[in-house]
Amino acid sequence: MSQWKQIQQLEIRLLEHVDYLYDDNFPMDIRQGLSSWIETQDWDTAANEESMAGVLFTNLLSQLDRVRSQEQNFLQRHNMKIIQQQLQVKYTSNPTVMARVISTCLREERRILSSAYMQEQVCRLFLRGKVPPVPS
Amino acid sequence: MSQWKQIQQLEIRLLEHVDYLYDDNFPMDIRQGLSSWIETQDWDTAANEESMAGVLFTNLLSQLDRVRSQEQNFLQRHNMKIIQQQLQVKYTSNPTVMARVISTCLREERRILSSAYMQEQVCRLFLRGKVPPVPS
Repeated sequence: MSQWKQIQQLEIRLLEHVDYLYDDNFPMDIRQGLSSWIETQDWDTAANEESMAGVLFTNLLSQLDRVRSQEQNFLQRHNMKIIQQQLQVKYTSNPTVMARVISTCLREERRILSSAYMQEQVCRLFLRGKVPPVPS
Repeated sequence: MSQWKQIQQLEIRLLEHVDYLYDDNFPMDIRQGLSSWIETQDWDTAANEESMAGVLFTNLLSQLDRVRSQEQNFLQRHNMKIIQQQLQVKYTSNPTVMARVISTCLREERRILSSAYMQEQVCRLFLRGKVPPVPS
């Protein structure tokens, strides 16, 4: 299951942490619309390599072009166009900044997922009586 | 039928004109999400009356709160929150500017609809032979 699909299955309290990761610097529409493609790119390396970041930025815009051309819904198509324009203004001269933003978001998502998994494991052990409750 | 529903039935060439009306100053998500409420407010008067514009701005934020609290989709709820924050930064001290932007968008939509209607009528008459074709 993709990381983004796992994120969407989190309980609301944890989803609120994810909510804070996304804004104009990396709109959640892109995270959702290109979730598989985003998760298979090496943003960590691109965050420190200008030429690789430039290639990933160009590829991301092409991916958005593809998604937009297939989108039937007028509002979604319009939103995709606005996001593309915003990204071009923001990152054309600084693609490493975009790579750093995406790298951070993906890492934070993994941290949130890992923390949720740990909590779930502790609860399971607690319910089986293998972890003593915290004294009040 | 609401004005916004009529707009969505336009052919793609005319929808492109509508597309250019909407950006961060008045996101299309709000136009769609609050379409009925927006069309029943007097934005023309509010554009010239600070106190009325202030009331409409507060009401618009309340409407967005209502829609956001009912929204089940995580991405849509997140987008609604981002838009609310952007509007607060942009218009809290200048609600008449927001009223002017909305008033202009609605008027331009009516102009586009009216133009589409006229073109349709001319085509109908032409097909019935009542309007001579433009000489080439």
